[in-house]
Amino acid sequence: MSSSFGTILRVTTFGESHGGGVGAVVDGCPPRLPLAAADIQPQLDRRRPGQSALTTPRAEADTVSILSGVENGLTLGTPIALLVMNRDMQPGDYAGLANIPRPSHADFTYQVKYGIRAASGGGRASARETVGRVAAGAVAEKILRVRWNVDIVAWVSAVGAVDAPDLTGRVLSRADVDQSAVRCPDAAAAQRMEADIVAARDAGDSVGGIVTCVCRNVPAGWGEPVFDKLEALLAQAMLSLPATKGFEIGSGFAGARLRGSAHNDAFVNKGGRLGTATNRSGGVQGGLSNGEPLVFRVAFKPPATIRRPQPTVDFDGRPVTLAAAGRHDPCVVPRAVPVVEAMAALVLADAALRPSFA
Amino acid sequence: MSSSFGTILRVTTFGESHGGGVGAVVDGCPPRLPLAAADIQPQLDRRRPGQSALTTPRAEADTVSILSGVENGLTLGTPIALLVMNRDMQPGDYAGLANIPRPSHADFTYQVKYGIRAASGGGRASARETVGRVAAGAVAEKILRVRWNVDIVAWVSAVGAVDAPDLTGRVLSRADVDQSAVRCPDAAAAQRMEADIVAARDAGDSVGGIVTCVCRNVPAGWGEPVFDKLEALLAQAMLSLPATKGFEIGSGFAGARLRGSAHNDAFVNKGGRLGTATNRSGGVQGGLSNGEPLVFRVAFKPPATIRRPQPTVDFDGRPVTLAAAGRHDPCVVPRAVPVVEAMAALVLADAALRPSFA
Amino acid sequence: MSSSFGTILRVTTFGESHGGGVGAVVDGCPPRLPLAAADIQPQLDRRRPGQSALTTPRAEADTVSILSGVENGLTLGTPIALLVMNRDMQPGDYAGLANIPRPSHADFTYQVKYGIRAASGGGRASARETVGRVAAGAVAEKILRVRWNVDIVAWVSAVGAVDAPDLTGRVLSRADVDQSAVRCPDAAAAQRMEADIVAARDAGDSVGGIVTCVCRNVPAGWGEPVFDKLEALLAQAMLSLPATKGFEIGSGFAGARLRGSAHNDAFVNKGGRLGTATNRSGGVQGGLSNGEPLVFRVAFKPPATIRRPQPTVDFDGRPVTLAAAGRHDPCVVPRAVPVVEAMAALVLADAALRPSFA
Amino acid sequence: MSSSFGTILRVTTFGESHGGGVGAVVDGCPPRLPLAAADIQPQLDRRRPGQSALTTPRAEADTVSILSGVENGLTLGTPIALLVMNRDMQPGDYAGLANIPRPSHADFTYQVKYGIRAASGGGRASARETVGRVAAGAVAEKILRVRWNVDIVAWVSAVGAVDAPDLTGRVLSRADVDQSAVRCPDAAAAQRMEADIVAARDAGDSVGGIVTCVCRNVPAGWGEPVFDKLEALLAQAMLSLPATKGFEIGSGFAGARLRGSAHNDAFVNKGGRLGTATNRSGGVQGGLSNGEPLVFRVAFKPPATIRRPQPTVDFDGRPVTLAAAGRHDPCVVPRAVPVVEAMAALVLADAALRPSFA
Repeated sequence: MSSSFGTILRVTTFGESHGGGVGAVVDGCPPRLPLAAADIQPQLDRRRPGQSALTTPRAEADTVSILSGVENGLTLGTPIALLVMNRDMQPGDYAGLANIPRPSHADFTYQVKYGIRAASGGGRASARETVGRVAAGAVAEKILRVRWNVDIVAWVSAVGAVDAPDLTGRVLSRADVDQSAVRCPDAAAAQRMEADIVAARDAGDSVGGIVTCVCRNVPAGWGEPVFDKLEALLAQAMLSLPATKGFEIGSGFAGARLRGSAHNDAFVNKGGRLGTATNRSGGVQGGLSNGEPLVFRVAFKPPATIRRPQPTVDFDGRPVTLAAAGRHDPCVVPRAVPVVEAMAALVLADAALRPSFA
Repeated sequence: MSSSFGTILRVTTFGESHGGGVGAVVDGCPPRLPLAAADIQPQLDRRRPGQSALTTPRAEADTVSILSGVENGLTLGTPIALLVMNRDMQPGDYAGLANIPRPSHADFTYQVKYGIRAASGGGRASARETVGRVAAGAVAEKILRVRWNVDIVAWVSAVGAVDAPDLTGRVLSRADVDQSAVRCPDAAAAQRMEADIVAARDAGDSVGGIVTCVCRNVPAGWGEPVFDKLEALLAQAMLSLPATKGFEIGSGFAGARLRGSAHNDAFVNKGGRLGTATNRSGGVQGGLSNGEPLVFRVAFKPPATIRRPQPTVDFDGRPVTLAAAGRHDPCVVPRAVPVVEAMAALVLADAALRPSFA
Repeated sequence: MSSSFGTILRVTTFGESHGGGVGAVVDGCPPRLPLAAADIQPQLDRRRPGQSALTTPRAEADTVSILSGVENGLTLGTPIALLVMNRDMQPGDYAGLANIPRPSHADFTYQVKYGIRAASGGGRASARETVGRVAAGAVAEKILRVRWNVDIVAWVSAVGAVDAPDLTGRVLSRADVDQSAVRCPDAAAAQRMEADIVAARDAGDSVGGIVTCVCRNVPAGWGEPVFDKLEALLAQAMLSLPATKGFEIGSGFAGARLRGSAHNDAFVNKGGRLGTATNRSGGVQGGLSNGEPLVFRVAFKPPATIRRPQPTVDFDGRPVTLAAAGRHDPCVVPRAVPVVEAMAALVLADAALRPSFA
Repeated sequence: MSSSFGTILRVTTFGESHGGGVGAVVDGCPPRLPLAAADIQPQLDRRRPGQSALTTPRAEADTVSILSGVENGLTLGTPIALLVMNRDMQPGDYAGLANIPRPSHADFTYQVKYGIRAASGGGRASARETVGRVAAGAVAEKILRVRWNVDIVAWVSAVGAVDAPDLTGRVLSRADVDQSAVRCPDAAAAQRMEADIVAARDAGDSVGGIVTCVCRNVPAGWGEPVFDKLEALLAQAMLSLPATKGFEIGSGFAGARLRGSAHNDAFVNKGGRLGTATNRSGGVQGGLSNGEPLVFRVAFKPPATIRRPQPTVDFDGRPVTLAAAGRHDPCVVPRAVPVVEAMAALVLADAALRPSFA
């Protein structure tokens, strides 16, 4: 297990989906930062199950407690322990799965690696693991907002075959994003996405999607070449999320199709500072932020657990047909939005707190 | 700077493009492994400049010396220092660039972050930095091959608009890949790719491309949830390479378009072990290898440094037209092939040496 | 803050003395290890305040909860979160101290570094911080005992001017150690030590002491040269404890007085394995365990907080006389015994889980 | 192997005593620092063998090359590779030792751990390994001196039974220390120490000693509770050195004998800043520097390799008498002085570069 992330702002997460609780310890937070549960709860609320008809019906209030590191509303510079107790565990849902590894799920690989696995609900491989990330990310966001006014907003840009138009040029707020349950700020696309999720759900199926994230007001110079380049850590952060299959920044895979003369972002004078006329770089040059918005996209596969029967084999190699019980999201991207934001915040706040030589 | 990578097998690289030398220290290599310069030199030769008409004419033999950690042809378990001296430095080429940051290059961001930058050739941001990675990767590959027979082969699957057919189903060797200078094993596609690179070069321009990599014989269970999942570290490794803009594993971005029932890889009995009928997972489930081939793709943008004149501004914000001198590749992907293999090897060997609980 | 320790078995602690709770997350514990609160509680009981007349009267049951990482009595290989809620907080005790930094205490340096400090009881600098260490150490001990039968026993070998005879040659149990409240297994010395502590306490004063620790059944070959040599990590572990001023292993400072011919431990044949006739090395050679018992000693200064009036200056530099309220131990070594054992266990278990090449 | 040390300023060392070379990579050095080989060579000269009649006659000029990270006399913020080639290797000296592990030496434990060891001269366990530390430490010292005027001076305070008087109250320079070959600034004690070393050498024996180190001008607030307290990292750093057996800071083991009222360092007003009237704390409170001089002592055992015959057993358990050939120091402390200074510098520079919240 590698349950810690970051060098200066270092978060350690813990918790299984059907154990006592989930949470995180955030070490390295600067002192004297105003911080309260109210800074953390909103993103947990955006992540929590049961928030709309598009998500799993598991009912968790996911109320966070701050156990340490804060006194009289200010951080002490000491580790901040964040805890969310589990409430609505239904381990019985998984009784039939003991000997059948779900296709494209962690059941098989955890069993091979550890010789044991949580008997119910995916344990540490469940998306419930991301509660600790979101709680910790909210602390990171507070640092970023107070000190640098960094603004991180993600949204759903694709569900299955449905694409939203490119919205990276608009300055969007989380309220804009939350206008639709699917978290796509384009109303027309949102409607079609939601229809697609409902159709998948009603068919006992699931569907994938893409989350786009933009981080504004990131100063130039964040990132640590050569192995902790900003895009490298963002890529690690995003591919560490359950169900992710791809990451691209700026022009991404499409950029591989271009000539240099069409791809290069010319510098321009932006009122005293150097900026770029275009942003195919996605806000990074040489692994360091360049002062333009960070723009990246994350691909999520369709959830592996589906009600629809699937032919497969059990742990003993015997053919079986699996039709999963349990409560699962037909599509993870609406709830993945705050999780992507949280991981972006953890990467950025850690980069921000590295030594500065200006 | 973050110049180290890996937890158990830990590599630290050093060196600027026009300094005394480049290299790496590999710590944590198991003892009693047969190792000689001859294990390392071939991949350096595949990476070195001047190897074909498609690459920069800079002439570097890139001969590696092993300074420590090996005695009588066997590793001692102690750090292995690998050194390649620089020979063909032409810092004068860059004299005119002192006050003009190249668009989409690291010049600007390094200057902002460090208040100084190597006066010539990109310094640490040059692709020459990858010499240390390739040398270290060859050590990692030796570990993987001797102990687990892991086989890592990458190739160029796209240059600009030219795509090779999907070759991930074929077992390719590096000899297959090296049949063409562009390192695409499909002869017809290779020819078109090479023509595209030559056209870009002759136009004083550059072009991007995609590298596909397959790692065979990886046992099930490698990877460390939740932050060091195998795909997360591969993503970090690849996005830490110069000029990369995207990473995807298995179905990647295309997987986001599918329903779960069409995406899930059913388990099948493969002669006593559980395998999967398809490989949309790309060899990972829940962040751990599942015993199937790892398959991933890396997008490289077109090189930023081009001879063709570009309008931009200098560090003082004054409009200038830049036509870069210096010796540069018109397309990095042919030489990126061994670099991608090296980074994959570093990720896999480190994962392999983590504690095993079988 | 650096609140994590260890490379493979990695513990992160959190909690202030008068906050919500204290605890630890233990990452990297092997799976399938039997583990219950009953494995952890005994050492917490030996550490807890109020256990005897020699210790602070603060009343804390210090009952531990395992929040994650264990299912049906077995570890899952996932992070183990351990929580002890604080109960008997009396922050009011410290009201008068707001502007007076206690001499030789962390008040001053925390204020300088963080610009803030816990308003009461030392916060993170309180010995209460060690609850997380002891809980985590009990997990480490379980690993060591089950797999290698490692046996770690510490005791008080000096209090002020009172020395116990050298007991490192005897195989002592924790029950032997706990025969006396002061935790010295030599009854006569224990009696004099306790008298000294009572005398110090009654004088509103405090007194220092020395803890000796022996770890038996440690196999040869643990430790990671050159920076994580076994004695180096033990030294770090011990000097990271509150109130410690010195560490020595084997012959220690006395060994600096000897000639090599008198200091060297000759090898002897111990029934098929090589052992040493003497143990001035303290169980380590070249930074690696040699199969003999590890023997080390840790010096603890007298607690800084005393009732007896002390002339000093306040934060503004004005002379004051300080007579501290609050509940404090007159001597920390009796309660430090399980803490030293815990830190030794964390060092050894982490060393044990590093790659083995035998 | 754990060949890296530090979090922000991170040094990785490499090299065996009789391999191609020894050295270090220093990552994380701030940019724009003036740095040349001339900053590094003096401490290597103080460390090198053959410098006086008291040391091994091995002849090594130990000339350092800077391979990267510096351009035009200024650091670039990139990794600084430092290399010293080995010249005077005499591996033949060790031919007879192949099957006899030297008592109290690393031969046995390396063989057990790695199943192989450098056939000559101790390999990585040789004191020659410290060349890389000293070179890297000189870089750290340069940072500390330029930015904070930190002054680090160590000296020999004991050889065998000979003690120097307490000199920690005097501001000593390295020139003061180098007045005598033994590096004790008290002339009378130095004379007796040197006589003792010569007597040990002439008897084919060796002798231990103690090094005292004082670091002045360290600002208050350096150190990272709870595991990277300043004294904890100093202890790790010192106990990672070959032949060390003990570390104490400030009052050390003697402090364990005192009452709190006699041990506490009262605060006093030192011209606007809070200082302490005494310095039993040794410059640290709560794991953080307090603005007073850091004062610590390190115990070195007598070298294990002696010419004088010793009864022992070979790897097969057969009794033999060992009389070692090879070139060895009869006492390590004179040459250990710059090594202790280097490790102190590495600890302090890394602490200095951690985030500051003032």
